[in-house]
Amino acid sequence: MAEAKQEGITVRKSENFDEWYTQVILKSELADYSPVSGCIVFRPSGYAIWEAIQRETDKEFKKIGIQNTYFPIFIPERLLKKEQEHVKGFSPEVAWVTQAGDSKLEERLAIRPTSETLMYEVISRWVRSSRDLPLRLNQWNNVVRWEFRHPTPLLRSREFLWNEGHTVFATEGEAMAERDEILRIYKTITEEYLALPGLVGKKTDAEKFAGATASYSIEHLMPDGKAIQGPDFHSDGQNFAKAFEISFVDRNGQKQFAWQNTWAISTREIGVMLAIHSDDKGLIVPPRVALFQVVIVPIFDEEARERVLKQAEKLRARLEETTSVKLDDRDHLTPGRKFNEWELKGVPLRVEIGARDLAKRQVVLARRDNGKKRQVTMASAAREVARELKEIQENLYQRALSFLKEHTYTAETYEQLKSSLKNGGIVRAPWCLSPDCEAKVKEETGAKIVNLPMDQKGTKSRCVYCGREAGVIANFAKSY
Amino acid sequence: MAEAKQEGITVRKSENFDEWYTQVILKSELADYSPVSGCIVFRPSGYAIWEAIQRETDKEFKKIGIQNTYFPIFIPERLLKKEQEHVKGFSPEVAWVTQAGDSKLEERLAIRPTSETLMYEVISRWVRSSRDLPLRLNQWNNVVRWEFRHPTPLLRSREFLWNEGHTVFATEGEAMAERDEILRIYKTITEEYLALPGLVGKKTDAEKFAGATASYSIEHLMPDGKAIQGPDFHSDGQNFAKAFEISFVDRNGQKQFAWQNTWAISTREIGVMLAIHSDDKGLIVPPRVALFQVVIVPIFDEEARERVLKQAEKLRARLEETTSVKLDDRDHLTPGRKFNEWELKGVPLRVEIGARDLAKRQVVLARRDNGKKRQVTMASAAREVARELKEIQENLYQRALSFLKEHTYTAETYEQLKSSLKNGGIVRAPWCLSPDCEAKVKEETGAKIVNLPMDQKGTKSRCVYCGREAGVIANFAKSY
Repeated sequence: MAEAKQEGITVRKSENFDEWYTQVILKSELADYSPVSGCIVFRPSGYAIWEAIQRETDKEFKKIGIQNTYFPIFIPERLLKKEQEHVKGFSPEVAWVTQAGDSKLEERLAIRPTSETLMYEVISRWVRSSRDLPLRLNQWNNVVRWEFRHPTPLLRSREFLWNEGHTVFATEGEAMAERDEILRIYKTITEEYLALPGLVGKKTDAEKFAGATASYSIEHLMPDGKAIQGPDFHSDGQNFAKAFEISFVDRNGQKQFAWQNTWAISTREIGVMLAIHSDDKGLIVPPRVALFQVVIVPIFDEEARERVLKQAEKLRARLEETTSVKLDDRDHLTPGRKFNEWELKGVPLRVEIGARDLAKRQVVLARRDNGKKRQVTMASAAREVARELKEIQENLYQRALSFLKEHTYTAETYEQLKSSLKNGGIVRAPWCLSPDCEAKVKEETGAKIVNLPMDQKGTKSRCVYCGREAGVIANFAKSY
Repeated sequence: MAEAKQEGITVRKSENFDEWYTQVILKSELADYSPVSGCIVFRPSGYAIWEAIQRETDKEFKKIGIQNTYFPIFIPERLLKKEQEHVKGFSPEVAWVTQAGDSKLEERLAIRPTSETLMYEVISRWVRSSRDLPLRLNQWNNVVRWEFRHPTPLLRSREFLWNEGHTVFATEGEAMAERDEILRIYKTITEEYLALPGLVGKKTDAEKFAGATASYSIEHLMPDGKAIQGPDFHSDGQNFAKAFEISFVDRNGQKQFAWQNTWAISTREIGVMLAIHSDDKGLIVPPRVALFQVVIVPIFDEEARERVLKQAEKLRARLEETTSVKLDDRDHLTPGRKFNEWELKGVPLRVEIGARDLAKRQVVLARRDNGKKRQVTMASAAREVARELKEIQENLYQRALSFLKEHTYTAETYEQLKSSLKNGGIVRAPWCLSPDCEAKVKEETGAKIVNLPMDQKGTKSRCVYCGREAGVIANFAKSY
């Protein structure tokens, strides 16, 4: 039987994480490099994960009254400059269109790095009275941030896909109430679909979004011990409303500026998911976002071929009613090669069905997450497959949660902080809220405050850096 | 009762089509202008139509084995130039990125006007053996064509949304078989969802896609008598495969180039839908693609307010099980104003419920397509609403089909052709297949061959221009 050379992962996750990460992406066929440096191609199994994230997130958005829109990808330079902090944050990495056909454009057009400035210019025309509010808009689109640092596929790509929610309220209270709604949705998607635990918290002023008054994030912990920012939520206060004249006349005839929020989840999440769950055999995808949840691999010699394939096809049809299933009936590969290939590609559950199984009216289920195999009767196969998928989903989450817990430390002194940070992970330590202490820690340890936990109960401890009274507990970590 | 000034459509469709078209788009709040000339904003009711088109089309694509992907938006200049015909067709309207941050790029990057060149460069790495085929990929994305002609919202926008299907086959036969599958899907979506009839046919060589060996299209007839191209399908033959080295080794050890197709449906279809169905009161949206299929307008004085609203809410909850429904319970607008607003916005069916209706246990259904009103019992409301929506969907299609039939003429002589073309519409006339005759007709009448009907049965007539033996019947029309 002739088999094409197919290479598995050649390095260990624990020994060379960066190389392992790249190999898993490419060899699992999740994504590929493109001819444009820093931009990747989402292959079908990778894009299917994004479709699952989109579908489930969008469903939740719609339930709370968010409406989808689409705004142009171009932002005229003069608009990008309208909010000072914002343009300062983004202009170093803007890709500029300067020509169309043979003509030089009169004004440069930015490819959106994010759409605040363009959207708010338009929205300001739509808001006249408090009856026009709230306006809760979202778009699923592509954005470009021309990073000059070393790009990493999915984690730091020059073009990426995301949702950008942009909402406008008459009062600060309504705007603030949305924060919990959106963070809850992002938490559900990351935990229950991507099986990714995270630390929800508030960003420090130094780390907040360019133009926002407060930023919130879900931070994940990567296997290399560095934190990475997941979905985020920004309270814009009235900053953009003032720059773009988004205002209305209230009941007393007074002009009021609106209160705004923005929020996003991006394809970076796929990279985080891959990094956290996968292993030395390749990709592991949580069942709820996998293109194929189950692969059926028939095992036969020439004599049993027809019989086995017939049963395998029957089983496929039955499983397809409730799961996404692939029957691998290719003739030119041995079952062993198929096992390796689908393990590399991260399909959560393999069903093996052979001539001997037929005789015993059973099949074998093999889990991708822990490698465990067991026999189940043919009659119970659909039920058992559903149960295993549920358990795999849960196990992946619990495994990631354990890793996060095991690598979350507390420190009361600077020595403790420095020592804990050496091993990677999150270190919870008291902080006096001074930007100076935050900056010094970053300078001296390379770790920053990734966020401040939401449930601050007050602390009697003293700032881990300066020893003054501490205002809060902060999550310190080295980060992406 | 204070009411904000809200303006209806101020011109007649039959008298000033262009102005009417723009007013309907803007005043129905389907779309809006943006600060970038030629690019529009899809507002929620407009984007919802695109979501419906995407959802239904994508479902059909997946059924026949198409897989979704995402490729970068940028195409390096050297790649765009790899296929001669292709670059000639697109380069005059390419938007170029030349700078990132403060740096000048070493090579200009085209914003994709279509993705053949970028995708095929990558795909060539994926295809080694016939076992890698077929490869049937699709992406839903944004593209930019910097038209210098007068842009028209939705019909000719500089940025638009579409699907681009790109498929690769080992044999010409398989590639050709896909044509009918895809055209059938596009026909279903345009006819059964957008209620738009169309003429399916083959493009002439002069009108085919840049780089294709044959193009096929669905052509719609606009109310102003001009044809407009809807979804299309292109047989690329081996043109791109040769330029991009997409090849494999066959069973005899011979190198073979692959056979490729590309196909698309775009947001232009929303503009066509609007133009064909809407009327002097504003937008009309077919139920199957409408954001809201039904609006409930309660009618009450102060005394009956509570009672009526309670019943209206009950009805809303009931209808919501099977339809997409909006209850307009705003206090500051009269029912009459609400009627006008929802008619302007094109909601297919209005349900009126007032105090007197309550007493009689009935509601009133008012159709947007023909203005007819009828009373139905409260108990039968859900069933009757479903029936009306089905009839509205069908009526819109039949109305458009009648318009197309009434404006489709046949001509045997050049005089007949010219005379028929004066009134607008499609003229079916014999053609000898000579590009010269085609060019002369275009020059002298302003009409081109929009396509050649698929079901050519052979004709004994003579070419409408030169009088030689005719090879085919062609659809002539002035067009967008």
